Amino acid sequence: MFKITLSNVDLLRNSIPIISEIIDEGVFKVDSNGLSLVSPDRSMIAVVNFQLLASAFDDFNVTGEEALGLNLANLVAVIKRIKTGDKVTLKKDEGMNVLEVVLEGRGRRRFEVPLLDITGEKPPLDQLEFKGKVELDSSVLEEGISDADIVDDSVVLETNPDAFKMWAKGDISSAQLELKKGEEGLRKLESAEALKSRYPLEYLKKMIKAAKLSEQVDLEFGTDYPMRLNFKSIDKVNLSFVLAPRVEE
Amino acid sequence: MFKITLSNVDLLRNSIPIISEIIDEGVFKVDSNGLSLVSPDRSMIAVVNFQLLASAFDDFNVTGEEALGLNLANLVAVIKRIKTGDKVTLKKDEGMNVLEVVLEGRGRRRFEVPLLDITGEKPPLDQLEFKGKVELDSSVLEEGISDADIVDDSVVLETNPDAFKMWAKGDISSAQLELKKGEEGLRKLESAEALKSRYPLEYLKKMIKAAKLSEQVDLEFGTDYPMRLNFKSIDKVNLSFVLAPRVEE
Amino acid sequence: MFKITLSNVDLLRNSIPIISEIIDEGVFKVDSNGLSLVSPDRSMIAVVNFQLLASAFDDFNVTGEEALGLNLANLVAVIKRIKTGDKVTLKKDEGMNVLEVVLEGRGRRRFEVPLLDITGEKPPLDQLEFKGKVELDSSVLEEGISDADIVDDSVVLETNPDAFKMWAKGDISSAQLELKKGEEGLRKLESAEALKSRYPLEYLKKMIKAAKLSEQVDLEFGTDYPMRLNFKSIDKVNLSFVLAPRVEE
Repeated sequence: MFKITLSNVDLLRNSIPIISEIIDEGVFKVDSNGLSLVSPDRSMIAVVNFQLLASAFDDFNVTGEEALGLNLANLVAVIKRIKTGDKVTLKKDEGMNVLEVVLEGRGRRRFEVPLLDITGEKPPLDQLEFKGKVELDSSVLEEGISDADIVDDSVVLETNPDAFKMWAKGDISSAQLELKKGEEGLRKLESAEALKSRYPLEYLKKMIKAAKLSEQVDLEFGTDYPMRLNFKSIDKVNLSFVLAPRVEE
Repeated sequence: MFKITLSNVDLLRNSIPIISEIIDEGVFKVDSNGLSLVSPDRSMIAVVNFQLLASAFDDFNVTGEEALGLNLANLVAVIKRIKTGDKVTLKKDEGMNVLEVVLEGRGRRRFEVPLLDITGEKPPLDQLEFKGKVELDSSVLEEGISDADIVDDSVVLETNPDAFKMWAKGDISSAQLELKKGEEGLRKLESAEALKSRYPLEYLKKMIKAAKLSEQVDLEFGTDYPMRLNFKSIDKVNLSFVLAPRVEE
Repeated sequence: MFKITLSNVDLLRNSIPIISEIIDEGVFKVDSNGLSLVSPDRSMIAVVNFQLLASAFDDFNVTGEEALGLNLANLVAVIKRIKTGDKVTLKKDEGMNVLEVVLEGRGRRRFEVPLLDITGEKPPLDQLEFKGKVELDSSVLEEGISDADIVDDSVVLETNPDAFKMWAKGDISSAQLELKKGEEGLRKLESAEALKSRYPLEYLKKMIKAAKLSEQVDLEFGTDYPMRLNFKSIDKVNLSFVLAPRVEE
């Protein structure tokens, strides 16, 4: 049983639709920390980790911990109906099997989204240890992904102590982005050794849409190892993704 | 035989394309009152009632009354070629079987649209008696229609003396908009008794595009009874629709 | 072997994509005059003539003359990745079989586009002698083409010493644009005799997109004779097209 109210509606409008491109169904959690979701995608190639902190809400009343099994497409259809200036209340009453979404602006608009009887698998994200970290302007990663996308369906990330590189090579053309330590756009580079790993563009193109939430993205990865992309809006919302590498046989 | 000239071209550009989404062919009338069309759609579920008053025109010369059978798609193709700043002349010469549309801006552009040999059926709109009337901000009706559209293909309108409601309930979700008397967005509510009727969203989504013409829309309806939607730009153009209810068996 | 650098990236972004809609593959030439392409389209109905003058570049180093066989779609994919503010370098090293495109903005982005082993046929454009010339606002030609497009798939151009006309007549409707000598939009008219020729709209709709490059377009044509359309941005880029007439049997 909870009732939580949010005026900064972009925190929902800029995050949930992106998540819904990767996850079909997921179990959201509402507890005293806020609203959160940790869920792998259907093919287990990616994990979404979303947190909207209790402090981002105008009112936040929850008793204990609630698990909300939701179809993301259903939820997004409602999220897209939010107008700027609306106040959004998410609500679940004891024993009810729906999430109630109330929009208050001109008049009162009320939506009911059915809850699904699903259980979330928690992927073991805590065991990941990344050898390198790159902090980038989100727009730089956006360009690197779009550049690679014109030549292949995957992109290789490489670091060494002095530079960060993204490149793709297709049958006909090649594309490469390079930033040296200290160059504009590369905010931080930590890579004691040379690292190299390939990732599928299909997922990266969806994840990079979270650049709307944050001007900075932190990449952590290793050689032939998963990558974590972290988009952080300080103190309010945190959206990160873990993406499996594409390892050549 | 007539020749009528209009500088306020948005009166045509914002109305005829909307009408053409509902009506395939129709008989326009030109007489001393202006340019008008009253026509049911092919399936007899809706009636379009359009009037562009003689006073909206810069020049208005007509002898008697002319009936113009037109294919709306042909007419819209020409209407869409009007540029802001053009002066539009609609013209029919004695014995000619075309509507001539002349656009004067840079140079002189002339279109001929063929006249069809059709006769319009006048639906008996005068016999309608509505038990309730709601005056809304057009944008409120727009929201209510779009909200309902995510859950079902029809929407229920309800009034009682104190409130106006629109709601839809699908297999999976529900949506509801409510405005109480005196709330912003609900300009007027006249409903001596409780009224309730369901209407197809397919038509409402087309009709609400007339919100471009007017910030206010007047709804008149009854229980399991047709609805009239009236978009009025004072003294110039009047676009109203009558829509049959969807009565549950 | 050459290396040429350009800051005014719109000269590429506003021209190459238009050319690629008409030409699949072509042989660009780089010599001391600049970068150029003269190429017929696959069906030999149109010829593209493009010149980006050496003076438009920040740096222009070329030894001798280089021929670059390029697939236009591949080239456009890279051109579209250029951001405003980037500096573009086009480069070919001795013995290399790729065109290197380097974008310098935030970081350094490098693309390789493969060179094709094709030879360009030079169409005998010098033999053309046009009897009439019309200088128009590009936007006027744009309107005339779009007007004609709603009624037919070709348009007739006519001149006489006093006026310029474009018209189309389909099964159902007709459209006509007329400009008299001295009217706004018609900058110059040279037509000693009456001229008349019909051209395919499919090509004209692609060519008129070059209106982005220049506010003025010069048309030269004759009776049942090819037309040349010339879009000229003084001292920098020149894009012209020759289009075969559609002669009625």
